[in-house]
Amino acid sequence: MHSVDFTAKTSSDGVVERDFTVGEVTGALWSPASGADRAPLVLMGHGGGTHKKWPGMVGRAHRLVTGCGFHVATIDAPGHGGRPRTEHDEQEIAALYRARSAGEPEGPIVVRYNAHLAERAVPEWQAALDALQELPEIGAEGPVGYFGLNMGTAIGVPLTAIEPRITAAVFGLHWPDRLAETAKQITIPIEFVLQWDDEHISRQSGLALFDAFASKEKTLHANAGRHKEVPRFEADSAVRFFARHLGRAVTSPA
Amino acid sequence: MHSVDFTAKTSSDGVVERDFTVGEVTGALWSPASGADRAPLVLMGHGGGTHKKWPGMVGRAHRLVTGCGFHVATIDAPGHGGRPRTEHDEQEIAALYRARSAGEPEGPIVVRYNAHLAERAVPEWQAALDALQELPEIGAEGPVGYFGLNMGTAIGVPLTAIEPRITAAVFGLHWPDRLAETAKQITIPIEFVLQWDDEHISRQSGLALFDAFASKEKTLHANAGRHKEVPRFEADSAVRFFARHLGRAVTSPA
Repeated sequence: MHSVDFTAKTSSDGVVERDFTVGEVTGALWSPASGADRAPLVLMGHGGGTHKKWPGMVGRAHRLVTGCGFHVATIDAPGHGGRPRTEHDEQEIAALYRARSAGEPEGPIVVRYNAHLAERAVPEWQAALDALQELPEIGAEGPVGYFGLNMGTAIGVPLTAIEPRITAAVFGLHWPDRLAETAKQITIPIEFVLQWDDEHISRQSGLALFDAFASKEKTLHANAGRHKEVPRFEADSAVRFFARHLGRAVTSPA
Repeated sequence: MHSVDFTAKTSSDGVVERDFTVGEVTGALWSPASGADRAPLVLMGHGGGTHKKWPGMVGRAHRLVTGCGFHVATIDAPGHGGRPRTEHDEQEIAALYRARSAGEPEGPIVVRYNAHLAERAVPEWQAALDALQELPEIGAEGPVGYFGLNMGTAIGVPLTAIEPRITAAVFGLHWPDRLAETAKQITIPIEFVLQWDDEHISRQSGLALFDAFASKEKTLHANAGRHKEVPRFEADSAVRFFARHLGRAVTSPA
């Protein structure tokens, strides 16, 4: 098994950010600067075409660390964040750009490509989680959350379905195709984000994926607005969701 | 115009509770015990068959006062909380109980009766708001919110549609019949609560009422569970919603 190898470290606003690798996979870990108390871990999956330190990811990580004292880890998806692309990656990305230029629906290509990426990413996430739990400030006993929208949901749903260490998750902004059957196996608490006026994902599709989760506790947050207009207060809501389910108090109200 | 006449006063957990009347209408006002600083006002409408000091109402009032320093006011709906019932009230309540005993749908009776009650309650709310704004600790300039589910939505939607003093509202748990056309006139920020497995209100009905609001900022919170199983964290979410829109910081995280 691979271990976490730290490659860089910075600190700002009470948060320590450490780049790491686990084998060939690149990642980042955010932790409270105040000390190395053992604390729950939240895994964050980024969206398609972005990377582990996309501004939205860094912002969410800071809210989770400063709001609840969590550790927050993310890894670059295959072909993302400087990780090498396969010929298949290049073909699918070209197909997506062609569809966009032609004004054709992106959905069928994104659904198919994300399902492919999830097959590669799920074992990478499991190896990263194994390695992260070897760190003394995380440990193997603490609860683990998962937070990922868009492609982060396409990867997070199959990961969560087979990974009993994940005990609460925030998902959203994805089509039900290829995911709904897997979501039916998931029973942990879920918060699910969708956009009421999403120009890519129909209401019916978004609601169908939320409906599929077998979780007794699940909450849908649907906001007026288009695909990329998820309000920033949903990140604060996710902090409170993880605080409830991973057993930490919110110390910094937002 | 009637003024607010206070009839009783108690205090607990940092919250002062004062019973009042405005003309024939009975109400309650909760305020911070710490002082008489001018602060925004949140109006709360209770559900059908309950009253101004139903435990859920008192709980929400305390969260709003201690979380943000708001003033919170409610009035008994016509025929509720000891206010006299008309012959028509008695007939409708009897019809509702008959439907329940027979296992028939409550919706058609509740929709019709709530619409009738709203016609009587809206002018009462406006008179109460006029009188409350005469109090020095509230004043006429501050923002006003409205928070009401079930019958509180049936009354709150027509009230909000004609009442420009209300600038943010939490609604939910109601059928769209008789309300959707009015909701289309409402453009203020809305948080809307529905239950995903509501045994009285179908998903399609609940979503249709949310959809009807013309608000640019509106958020749907749909939770797994039956009609009466709205999770308590939705009350905390409402506190944060009003904090965002009525311009107060959340001082007591929940």
